Amino acid sequence: MNFIQQLGQAWQQNHSLLCIGLDPDLAKMPPHLRHAKDGIFTFCKAIIDATHDLACAYKPQIAYFAALGAEDQLQQICDYLRSNYPHLPIILDAKRGDIGATATQYAREAFERYRADAVTVNPYMGFDSVEPYLAWPDKGVIVLCRTSNPGGSDLQFLQVNGRPLYQHVADLVANQWNRVGNQPGQFALVVGATFPQELAAVRSIVGEMPLLVPGIGAQGGDVQASVLSGKTASGLGMMINSSRAILYASSDEATFAQAARKVALATRDEINLYR
Amino acid sequence: MNFIQQLGQAWQQNHSLLCIGLDPDLAKMPPHLRHAKDGIFTFCKAIIDATHDLACAYKPQIAYFAALGAEDQLQQICDYLRSNYPHLPIILDAKRGDIGATATQYAREAFERYRADAVTVNPYMGFDSVEPYLAWPDKGVIVLCRTSNPGGSDLQFLQVNGRPLYQHVADLVANQWNRVGNQPGQFALVVGATFPQELAAVRSIVGEMPLLVPGIGAQGGDVQASVLSGKTASGLGMMINSSRAILYASSDEATFAQAARKVALATRDEINLYR
Repeated sequence: MNFIQQLGQAWQQNHSLLCIGLDPDLAKMPPHLRHAKDGIFTFCKAIIDATHDLACAYKPQIAYFAALGAEDQLQQICDYLRSNYPHLPIILDAKRGDIGATATQYAREAFERYRADAVTVNPYMGFDSVEPYLAWPDKGVIVLCRTSNPGGSDLQFLQVNGRPLYQHVADLVANQWNRVGNQPGQFALVVGATFPQELAAVRSIVGEMPLLVPGIGAQGGDVQASVLSGKTASGLGMMINSSRAILYASSDEATFAQAARKVALATRDEINLYR
Repeated sequence: MNFIQQLGQAWQQNHSLLCIGLDPDLAKMPPHLRHAKDGIFTFCKAIIDATHDLACAYKPQIAYFAALGAEDQLQQICDYLRSNYPHLPIILDAKRGDIGATATQYAREAFERYRADAVTVNPYMGFDSVEPYLAWPDKGVIVLCRTSNPGGSDLQFLQVNGRPLYQHVADLVANQWNRVGNQPGQFALVVGATFPQELAAVRSIVGEMPLLVPGIGAQGGDVQASVLSGKTASGLGMMINSSRAILYASSDEATFAQAARKVALATRDEINLYR
């Protein structure tokens, strides 16, 4: 089963378009875990166990692990997810981008070291920086298109042939890159929730292609507008990500995981209202 | 002393614009080191010791370490460089790009964990994805502008207001981003050697800003054309990178380091012919 099929099953099984981002920030974690051995793994495991029936995917953000030299705990988390919740895809949020020979190394990192089901990548260096990932035909490649940060407009909103660059990227990925490979159709796109009308523009360009949508929760994106703008005709097609609002709903030692579940449940259900 | 000053001193002291890329590929390393404990560190240390008087900087490519779970050896290499050749800047080639909170984690990875002097970053997510690196005012931030791979043209050559996107990026970095921060002037750009006329176009936009120039050696870029196109009026302003042609000049156990030195010397001297 490839990433796109796995995601399709997870959407159905958990009746959820909610992707939960794992961004372990020591300063925000419950105090008893901040300096515990394998505290990051313990924290993420508790969040996962409390929310696994509410999510369509988990998305560990590798930067948080890399800053702390905690790659081993990232590996533990991926192993735990795969062993216990194999129906839920793991998206390694790494936003990699480099030339062919180096891209192959990054693909090995994502798909062999961490055995993630999909990885996020940056389109700036073009197709041959993305192509090496296609050598793993069951894996997903999620390309940055329109990002949720204010500075995203600096480049992505520049006009290229009468339309903004991000729409050009959406077109390129949907109509060229996604048709390549032994088993075409490995691509998805990142489109932020902070600009619902742009989600709609991307949806109209890319057909049924899944969209990873960060920016709700702590970043302030509007759930209703995002779902209405980004869903497919069948009410699917989105991985709507929330990280901080769920992970750090409480830092109380005894109740943080249940607090996370409460926010995840409310978010999943709010999303489902508008599908 | 900040990165730009350190680089200026290294250019003078070693009379060199040659940056040596450290891309440790097990399949190409001398066989006795491929499976040795800390073999990557031993390999890179030998290359460094054999070439330290010929280089203006070393550029470890983090993907090669990440694919193998060899972050500890990357750390050893950075420690070794800093202890033994503190006048030579370490450029962590990571091409990171993410939103503010996550960018801060990547900056910690580069500047605190590995204590690199500069890091490469991707401009696609805009200024607020780059700004967090400026909180380390003595460090350098090297932004992808025009990359040396064929697919680089997919986005970078798109026309924006009558000029290609990469020139827009050069302008943005030189005339806006580089004026920000407590100590403005932390930026440099990546411009590939495979397009000398484009190097000239970027040089004319960015004044004295240093350019990191990959693409000579294994990638086939022309040294003479690159130097003539990219140098400043004073014959400086470039870090011309070669990785594979130097590292893998020979895989012979007894002579690989001297073979690397021979290629590095010839490359440095060829560059100097045209300054």
